[in-house]
Amino acid sequence: MSQSVQVPTEGQRFSALHDAFDRGALRQAAQMLNALEPAEIAHLLESMPPAERAAAWELVDGASGGEVLLYVTEEVREDLLRDMDSAEILEATRELDTDDLADLVADLPKSITREVLKSLDAQRRARLEQALSYPEDSAGGLMNTDAVTVRPEVTLDVVMRYLRRFKEGLPDLTDNLIVVNREGGYLGVLFLSDILTNDPDASVAEVMTADIQPIPATWEARDVANRFEQHDLVSAPVVGEDGQVLGRITVDDVMDVIREEAEHQFMGQAGLSEDSDMFAPVLLSARRRALWLGINLLTAFLAAWVIGQFEATIEQVVALAVLMPIVASMGGIAGTQTLTLAVRGIALGQLSGQNAPSLVARELAVGAINGLIWAAVVAGVAWVWFGSPGIAAIIAAAMVINLVMAALSGAALPVLLERVGIDPALAGGVILTTVTDVTGFLAFLGLATLYLI
Amino acid sequence: MSQSVQVPTEGQRFSALHDAFDRGALRQAAQMLNALEPAEIAHLLESMPPAERAAAWELVDGASGGEVLLYVTEEVREDLLRDMDSAEILEATRELDTDDLADLVADLPKSITREVLKSLDAQRRARLEQALSYPEDSAGGLMNTDAVTVRPEVTLDVVMRYLRRFKEGLPDLTDNLIVVNREGGYLGVLFLSDILTNDPDASVAEVMTADIQPIPATWEARDVANRFEQHDLVSAPVVGEDGQVLGRITVDDVMDVIREEAEHQFMGQAGLSEDSDMFAPVLLSARRRALWLGINLLTAFLAAWVIGQFEATIEQVVALAVLMPIVASMGGIAGTQTLTLAVRGIALGQLSGQNAPSLVARELAVGAINGLIWAAVVAGVAWVWFGSPGIAAIIAAAMVINLVMAALSGAALPVLLERVGIDPALAGGVILTTVTDVTGFLAFLGLATLYLI
Repeated sequence: MSQSVQVPTEGQRFSALHDAFDRGALRQAAQMLNALEPAEIAHLLESMPPAERAAAWELVDGASGGEVLLYVTEEVREDLLRDMDSAEILEATRELDTDDLADLVADLPKSITREVLKSLDAQRRARLEQALSYPEDSAGGLMNTDAVTVRPEVTLDVVMRYLRRFKEGLPDLTDNLIVVNREGGYLGVLFLSDILTNDPDASVAEVMTADIQPIPATWEARDVANRFEQHDLVSAPVVGEDGQVLGRITVDDVMDVIREEAEHQFMGQAGLSEDSDMFAPVLLSARRRALWLGINLLTAFLAAWVIGQFEATIEQVVALAVLMPIVASMGGIAGTQTLTLAVRGIALGQLSGQNAPSLVARELAVGAINGLIWAAVVAGVAWVWFGSPGIAAIIAAAMVINLVMAALSGAALPVLLERVGIDPALAGGVILTTVTDVTGFLAFLGLATLYLI
Repeated sequence: MSQSVQVPTEGQRFSALHDAFDRGALRQAAQMLNALEPAEIAHLLESMPPAERAAAWELVDGASGGEVLLYVTEEVREDLLRDMDSAEILEATRELDTDDLADLVADLPKSITREVLKSLDAQRRARLEQALSYPEDSAGGLMNTDAVTVRPEVTLDVVMRYLRRFKEGLPDLTDNLIVVNREGGYLGVLFLSDILTNDPDASVAEVMTADIQPIPATWEARDVANRFEQHDLVSAPVVGEDGQVLGRITVDDVMDVIREEAEHQFMGQAGLSEDSDMFAPVLLSARRRALWLGINLLTAFLAAWVIGQFEATIEQVVALAVLMPIVASMGGIAGTQTLTLAVRGIALGQLSGQNAPSLVARELAVGAINGLIWAAVVAGVAWVWFGSPGIAAIIAAAMVINLVMAALSGAALPVLLERVGIDPALAGGVILTTVTDVTGFLAFLGLATLYLI
């Protein structure tokens, strides 16, 4: 008898739950909510406006609360923590592994952190301190300390008898055991599947895979993610500088890294953090976004100042005021295309100083071609509209200049920013549009001043 | 003795290879290249300009060529295929699994596809046709057909003896066996780790996990990815409408889905495909990007036309031409922030018709607050700059109007576009900036015409 396959997608289950809330059927909502995985509860809470979120959070079982806190984004976590007293926070964190606890601790109020630390025994406290010693976005920060290790000289049969002592099952996402020497140094990994497909009398040393390189604890999360993606890993051993096995990284954490990196690129372009809460308090959102608007206002004033230098010209030929935004905006669009390609290339580790000149050259060619094509179109329209071949010629020239400038800065800027340690995903767009606005207005109005007046 | 931990990151290995190419040390380059995993070779080829890419592709072993083709993005794949004759393509595809072959077939030249089909035996051809019957971005399209199945009534000991017959090892990323009834209907999964930690005399039925719901073949890839992320899955069974097990999905393919979805959002904003090749031929790139520039040119002309309606006003007060881009650009920036939040919310399944009104309300409040703040700043600067309280008052009013309009369209547009089946990640930005440009110019110049002249 096969089970029915009416599996509701996440969206469908979420709307059922929203409906229960809307109807005020709280007991039913609590049942539906606590039947979900902590990650699903987290996802659902993120999609709720503040009042509904607070009500739903009240209904979540205390024991799974800690895990839910792990899965929500930072801003939502702060929001949820705000509603909890210290007893509730202590209860929620009691069940967590030390490495998960390490991820939470940074967001806890200082006084609570002290209480949490006091509630730990010496061993757990030592582990927590070790986990906190690595940056969050390093291999050490991603690492779990629940690795199961075996010695190379024993037989698979012995390994199997050892594993049967794990009455509660192996740690989640264990696809291999880490083979270590007497000093805990890394030797290789023993896949569970290889334990099952090989002769039980074979030794671990014979069956283990020795050519999987361990991940140094100091690697950046981005490099770890690339390694997982390109070697199709489920879990990988992490080692210290001396080759000692410190723990392991699992694919679920790597998926989070990939998601966060990608969101950082996407949200960063609009000056937003990837941790943004869609339903953050209005005043908080307004304050966070004000900074970005302020920076952009400065660049807008710069562009306005450039236009201001040509007031006399515009006074004589008002058509220039009508047409000038076209030159600036086309430069911005073309430049953004190049910038986007380059930012992705850097994030994937595919663009660096080595191949950047090649990208710049190609983008210049693309910019020149599109500059010429659209210059012709814009010039034609401008000629018909204002009946002036002079204006048509000048806007055509300005378009070509701005699109070439856009290609150059779109390709070169991100590489330069990366080199001086500025995040191109965040700063690239603002600087680029400043360049294309200023170049666009300057070229168009400048040429007009020289040749029209 | 533990192995040294001088593990080079991907970036370091790639630059060593680039160096070998630059020095013309082709034999050394070939050795380094073929020591890499196919996914790594793919990643490396993507980062190479055309000439170097063609040279490197020549050096890749024919046998791993097929897998490399699988891993590169679509545009790069077309580029690589262009250089291969039909014999080479046939050799590269010979070693591939049918489900991998299915992913490639769409990009092969028609004549080659026929030859590939002819070279398959009846069983493989039937499998290929089944794989091709699902859309690429559905669970069926992501599925592999290499699942290992077991029956519920046998003991773990029998399962272990069965597994020892897999001399070549289990299929990659096998963390569980799928338990099926006599008709192949889905019953549950048996984790490898549970085989190892339980009594060998226990039956599969006793040890298997029955509460993992299988994934219907018709699910969208996005829903599959959410399921994997929220349940921390390594592999999951896929079933047909009747509950028959069709195959399984593995986490490596899901990581690709997450990566592609995220890149689609990021690249889509600039009118680029997530399959874009950084080093695509110049003419091809120019043509692809021309369409996006053309669309944006239309909207730029619309904005220019709006300005054109106020030529007489600008002629009298040239300061308006200087200040008007500020109003338009601030609206665009503020609107893009809201739009970005909303697009991400939709992609994560966290924003829908149900909570959209709540988002719109909050964004309107944020827009109004920031509108008032920046209106005051801009008005102050305008007053000092042009010494006109009238212009200051008018630009302040126009800023508030445009930022509120930006919030409204940024929040509501993506939800509306999604509902009518238009991809908000692609179209949202263009429509939004058209709205904020037109509103900005209309409000500022319109108010000036009414009250200044």
